[in-house]
Amino acid sequence: MVCELISVGTELLLGNIVNTNTQFLAEKCALLGLSSYYQVTVGDNRERLAEAIRTALKRSDIVILTGGLGPTEDDLTKEVCAEVMDFPLAEDAHTRERLEEFFKNSIYKKISENNWKQAMIPDGAKVLDNHNGTAPGLILEKYGKSAILLPGPPNELIPLFMEQVYPYLQKLQPEIIRSQMVKICGVGESQVEDKLLDLIDKQTNPTIATYAKTGEVHLRVTAKAGSTEEADKRIKPVVKEIKRRFGDFVYSTREDETLEMAVVRLLRKLELTVTTAESCTGGMLAARLTNVPGVSEVFREGFITYANKAKRKILDVSKSTLKKYGAVSEQTAKEMATGGVFATDADVCVAITGLAGPGGGSEEKPVGLVYIACYLKDEVKVEKYQFKGNREKIREQSVVKALDLLRRSILDNYR
Amino acid sequence: MVCELISVGTELLLGNIVNTNTQFLAEKCALLGLSSYYQVTVGDNRERLAEAIRTALKRSDIVILTGGLGPTEDDLTKEVCAEVMDFPLAEDAHTRERLEEFFKNSIYKKISENNWKQAMIPDGAKVLDNHNGTAPGLILEKYGKSAILLPGPPNELIPLFMEQVYPYLQKLQPEIIRSQMVKICGVGESQVEDKLLDLIDKQTNPTIATYAKTGEVHLRVTAKAGSTEEADKRIKPVVKEIKRRFGDFVYSTREDETLEMAVVRLLRKLELTVTTAESCTGGMLAARLTNVPGVSEVFREGFITYANKAKRKILDVSKSTLKKYGAVSEQTAKEMATGGVFATDADVCVAITGLAGPGGGSEEKPVGLVYIACYLKDEVKVEKYQFKGNREKIREQSVVKALDLLRRSILDNYR
Repeated sequence: MVCELISVGTELLLGNIVNTNTQFLAEKCALLGLSSYYQVTVGDNRERLAEAIRTALKRSDIVILTGGLGPTEDDLTKEVCAEVMDFPLAEDAHTRERLEEFFKNSIYKKISENNWKQAMIPDGAKVLDNHNGTAPGLILEKYGKSAILLPGPPNELIPLFMEQVYPYLQKLQPEIIRSQMVKICGVGESQVEDKLLDLIDKQTNPTIATYAKTGEVHLRVTAKAGSTEEADKRIKPVVKEIKRRFGDFVYSTREDETLEMAVVRLLRKLELTVTTAESCTGGMLAARLTNVPGVSEVFREGFITYANKAKRKILDVSKSTLKKYGAVSEQTAKEMATGGVFATDADVCVAITGLAGPGGGSEEKPVGLVYIACYLKDEVKVEKYQFKGNREKIREQSVVKALDLLRRSILDNYR
Repeated sequence: MVCELISVGTELLLGNIVNTNTQFLAEKCALLGLSSYYQVTVGDNRERLAEAIRTALKRSDIVILTGGLGPTEDDLTKEVCAEVMDFPLAEDAHTRERLEEFFKNSIYKKISENNWKQAMIPDGAKVLDNHNGTAPGLILEKYGKSAILLPGPPNELIPLFMEQVYPYLQKLQPEIIRSQMVKICGVGESQVEDKLLDLIDKQTNPTIATYAKTGEVHLRVTAKAGSTEEADKRIKPVVKEIKRRFGDFVYSTREDETLEMAVVRLLRKLELTVTTAESCTGGMLAARLTNVPGVSEVFREGFITYANKAKRKILDVSKSTLKKYGAVSEQTAKEMATGGVFATDADVCVAITGLAGPGGGSEEKPVGLVYIACYLKDEVKVEKYQFKGNREKIREQSVVKALDLLRRSILDNYR
């Protein structure tokens, strides 16, 4: 089966946003074993959108459209798709009710009239309830083809797709496709590929695909088979071999488990509590940890000590250390981590101090220099990094390395 | 003039990478005043690539192709484009020389034979030397149309485009295009559009485009004219009118200024320092503030008080308040903000306490309930919100509202 992705939105044509939806959908469609030959982006223009839909329905079995489902004048996807596929629009009582419910709790006092057009549904379409926004998703089926309409905001699109569209597409496919993630932290992408070269070279079924993320590499092992059991049987030895080769660098084999989730899982299992002491990352590490629901069991408080005075007052970093070695130094990082544990009743503290730039660098201490320390059981580990990239990239990489240091420190102490 | 972007590469169809090249090129083309109606992605397939190029040359004046210029079997862009536009290929001595030079300094001992195919150039094409890789860029002109072929790796494409293609495109354009951003916080997208309906309805030159971000709406006013001055003269009264209608809801008219940058600018101007006291956002507010280079002048420390005990110990929230009203309450938010100022020497403190979910909600206090307080000059403002969406969305919206409350509190006190 051939699937085509159409992104709708003038903001894409103007380059105001990066099209991450297409990457997400393309990856998932590939996972489902759907073939993909074209991805198209069109603006909020009736004629060109209609033409794109007609062309896609001719050459593909499944057309997934994203964006243009909202309440504004520019939002045309539903109207145009319904017209092309000859579905009349009618108000859907269920969707109207959901909208009323949504707006009842809204912070906006006045609901503009155009919002109600979101309750107009192509007659006969499957309605996919959107739990994170107002515009529902839709599936229109005709002539053996499916058009799937999804809202543009990723936080609406992703859960809607995973919960309602993925199972729908799975049913359309004759072969069973199964896959398993292996998530690695602390090894570069080309190093990972080098270490798996023999496996990748001879791969047919299962296949191994690598995806580079900031500070991480994700491997997806995918097998096709006649049954779930058979597919899983193909995957299992390959995953086992990858885990053998990378050992502790593998932090998870769960599809939806992020690095911070794996860290929190480990902390919960061992009943350890953690605190954070951040300088250049300014709260990003704590923010990532507290992304994880249920983190309150293991994380109670954290500190952002941006100024030297704050490092001294809150974390008891000594004046002489700051004077002698500077705020960005191994010694300061160590004292921050130690101070974090003593200022709280936490078992572990991770500290970050560095130069995120763009200003403030010197020959001796260039922008990108970051020290990360972890205090656990009367012992402080500290690591020095020289990161590349802009302020955002340096801060992001620091957080990943801090989470990974925390993870490795715990593993080293509790095995 | 109409420009179309074609991305070539099966890795894009499979969702292995995000297509950032298209965003980069689209933004630059828009800035040059080129119209853009389509972006297309095709795989490394001869027939489909040829078809995409033919279609694009029919409906657009300029076609920019990225990817597929390398040495491998899969790299077809140059061959196919030359065939479609009827350019014979011939070895280019200059490019051959550059390749020899490149490989002389290469880390690879053995240069595979297929690398030399990169010296084969469509006869009559402009060669764009690539200083960061082996495949040169190309411009093919025929029938009043231009096809521009660029290498896929962003570190090759971006400098090549900026240095050699941007000036080429600039010369093709007769008209000047200018635009100005107006960024609004605290008003929903449809409300913004309602309030501008008359302006949007009659727009031709300049035009007004709206973009919804989390908790924000951005408006871009764009004018075409014969000169920069004339274009700016068209934009000015429209921007003035938008600012008049939205007053303090407009936080910036600067292209690259984010909400946190506007807040930090305001703090710096008034020489105020700020601290943060976060519960459910767990450091996200501080992380956003510290995104801004130079924030250290106005932000020295911040606190994440996730547990009640931390709220009491660090921010001096009273035991009886927590007992009587709970951690998620107006009273606790107020005491957190007040405590933040007294625990530091900051002038202002923003505090956030809420239920980000998914667990922990009740009928009285449902998930999404968030209180945000701001202490400034012996006065605490507190706002209550009931946000929709998942944990991430609730936390994100809380941070935007907190930044906006901080901004509005300062404006109210210092005008």
